Amino acid sequence: MDNTVKRLAVLGSTGSIGQQTLEVVRALPHRFRIIGLAAGKNFDLLAKQINEFKPRFVYFHDKEAQAHLPGGGHELLSLEDIACHPQTDIVVIATSGKSGLVPTLAAVKAGKKICLANKESLVMAGEIITSEAKLNAAQILPVDSEHSAIWQCLEGETQPAAQLILTASGGPFRHYSSAQLSKVTAKQALKHPSWQMGSKVTIDSATLMNKGLEVIEAHWLFNMPFDNIKVLIHPQSIVHSMVEFVDGSIKAQLSYPDMRLPIQYALSYPERLANPQLPRLDWSRINSLTFEQPDFDTFPCLKLAIVVGNKGGTYPAVLCAADEVAVELFLSQRIKFIDIAKLVEQALEEHQVVAQPTLEEILAADAWAREKVLQLISGDNL
Amino acid sequence: MDNTVKRLAVLGSTGSIGQQTLEVVRALPHRFRIIGLAAGKNFDLLAKQINEFKPRFVYFHDKEAQAHLPGGGHELLSLEDIACHPQTDIVVIATSGKSGLVPTLAAVKAGKKICLANKESLVMAGEIITSEAKLNAAQILPVDSEHSAIWQCLEGETQPAAQLILTASGGPFRHYSSAQLSKVTAKQALKHPSWQMGSKVTIDSATLMNKGLEVIEAHWLFNMPFDNIKVLIHPQSIVHSMVEFVDGSIKAQLSYPDMRLPIQYALSYPERLANPQLPRLDWSRINSLTFEQPDFDTFPCLKLAIVVGNKGGTYPAVLCAADEVAVELFLSQRIKFIDIAKLVEQALEEHQVVAQPTLEEILAADAWAREKVLQLISGDNL
Repeated sequence: MDNTVKRLAVLGSTGSIGQQTLEVVRALPHRFRIIGLAAGKNFDLLAKQINEFKPRFVYFHDKEAQAHLPGGGHELLSLEDIACHPQTDIVVIATSGKSGLVPTLAAVKAGKKICLANKESLVMAGEIITSEAKLNAAQILPVDSEHSAIWQCLEGETQPAAQLILTASGGPFRHYSSAQLSKVTAKQALKHPSWQMGSKVTIDSATLMNKGLEVIEAHWLFNMPFDNIKVLIHPQSIVHSMVEFVDGSIKAQLSYPDMRLPIQYALSYPERLANPQLPRLDWSRINSLTFEQPDFDTFPCLKLAIVVGNKGGTYPAVLCAADEVAVELFLSQRIKFIDIAKLVEQALEEHQVVAQPTLEEILAADAWAREKVLQLISGDNL
Repeated sequence: MDNTVKRLAVLGSTGSIGQQTLEVVRALPHRFRIIGLAAGKNFDLLAKQINEFKPRFVYFHDKEAQAHLPGGGHELLSLEDIACHPQTDIVVIATSGKSGLVPTLAAVKAGKKICLANKESLVMAGEIITSEAKLNAAQILPVDSEHSAIWQCLEGETQPAAQLILTASGGPFRHYSSAQLSKVTAKQALKHPSWQMGSKVTIDSATLMNKGLEVIEAHWLFNMPFDNIKVLIHPQSIVHSMVEFVDGSIKAQLSYPDMRLPIQYALSYPERLANPQLPRLDWSRINSLTFEQPDFDTFPCLKLAIVVGNKGGTYPAVLCAADEVAVELFLSQRIKFIDIAKLVEQALEEHQVVAQPTLEEILAADAWAREKVLQLISGDNL
């Protein structure tokens, strides 16, 4: 057992995963200490967190506001500098969207232990990040519940898995027809049946884009061909994912949908820590776990993501960027729910792919796709 | 990867587990070779197996008949001598009832790798067997699907489990009332809803005694207090058991109910081997996995076994022996289904327990219990 106190930098500390990371740290103060906090938007919450955790390093996106943060014991650093600082033992990348990419890559190059909650980094630049991680002996530990489940199921196995089975709740619109989907509102889409999450990932769950991004992420994290990654709808969100082995045996990881568990597992790995705040499954109240096949036709984002992941190059960056913009447009009621997939697909169709892209080419594809989606809707040619 | 061919001795080769072990060997001839076969009753099948597998060592219970077995290349040895022979790499103990105890102990003392399908050995003499195994660096690898599932889920974990959850199909009489149970026939009891097994274990599944014995077995195999071993009814027999860890995370092992998988896992451990004969779960046909709490009142054998396992001493030996005789009496239509539990309970009540018994005291308790049950039914005082 490793009893040293680990020093954590949490990038994206005011988001959903960031806040839950701090809850875990609060529950286990003898094991974890906050050395760095970074946030993009929520000044007030970051100020509160600084007062409570007294980090040594702080970042806030707005440089002017940054100077008005409370305390004074902290140093203002960039995201990358916090991630790479020699005093940082563990970096939690809990930012959403593409903002996670550059600090993730910095942490990887610094050979850090990285708890990765940001999907986009691996989706956009999986090849670069995983090869740099190998080169620099960085550890990329998944925080997503699905990837954490797979990781837990693989632990101790001496051979590669035969198949990964990612479960998906199916979101709030499971069993909806395309006609019904064309009418859903942002308010409806933000009501996830089993998980409490940030708004971007909640909408991505409703379109199943989230599961598609996770397939790509799983491909990179576990070095698994796309053909051997399956998606299975499981509305109760109790089985977080499964692994099938060469002998046909399957292992699954189960718990209530609560992100604090995968966060804590990544932080404490290879140990598991008792935390009375984490709920234990009550089998007297679980009668049935159900499973069904995903509906690729009605939820085209899932198929799109898998196809694009398989094609590689700059396509996944375009997928991510186009989706990020399209989701924002949907949330601000400028497009319909079903337009998200249409916009992403159109952007992908018009994209001139670069195979084996550099980081710069990936970021250029990202910028191009954002521009393209805005162009597409201004032309009203949906 | 270990590519040497392992030499297997299968004790109980004509029973259900024995035959399925030979199926695995047949499918993987480059990895396993049969060096010993032993059977108690089925002369014709043993003769066939000898012709096919050409073992070096053979045992048949009937000494006169033994001389008439085919071939001539084999040596006739006792069960213990086959189990301990220096040429035996792996001993599969697939005998049923107490006949497994003495050869298991012999194999343990010889420091063998033992694939243990016989429940009674550990139930009757768990303390002796596990302490001898430690002393002689013997490996006891479970073959029961439930214990194999737990073992697979524990693999790679660095800390003890918080809780073991043994699943049970519930047998053919799940949801029956005591009144209904009083009328069931042997034919009905032998129709297990999900597993194809020998008749003793099938009846034990119907009374839930089987699950009780498994709880005791799990206690010894995984060094787990009885309070931390739970039983959960799961009629589909897809989830074979689960382990809960200190952080609340649960791992489960899933597959179709097919004993060849846990047999093969024990044989090939720590490797997993591809075997096209083993079925892979078809998730397009699995809609729902259901769970319910066991009914301890209607199925008193389960509670009896857990209480007796907790008390220890010679009680578990009496439980096993009384149950073995009672099941035979039920199968030969001399007692009713519900009398099985009554007879076992009466035998336990009248037993003068020996704490920390020697092997001789365990065998004496076994003999006493068998006699006692016969006495009880001859007195017709049920």
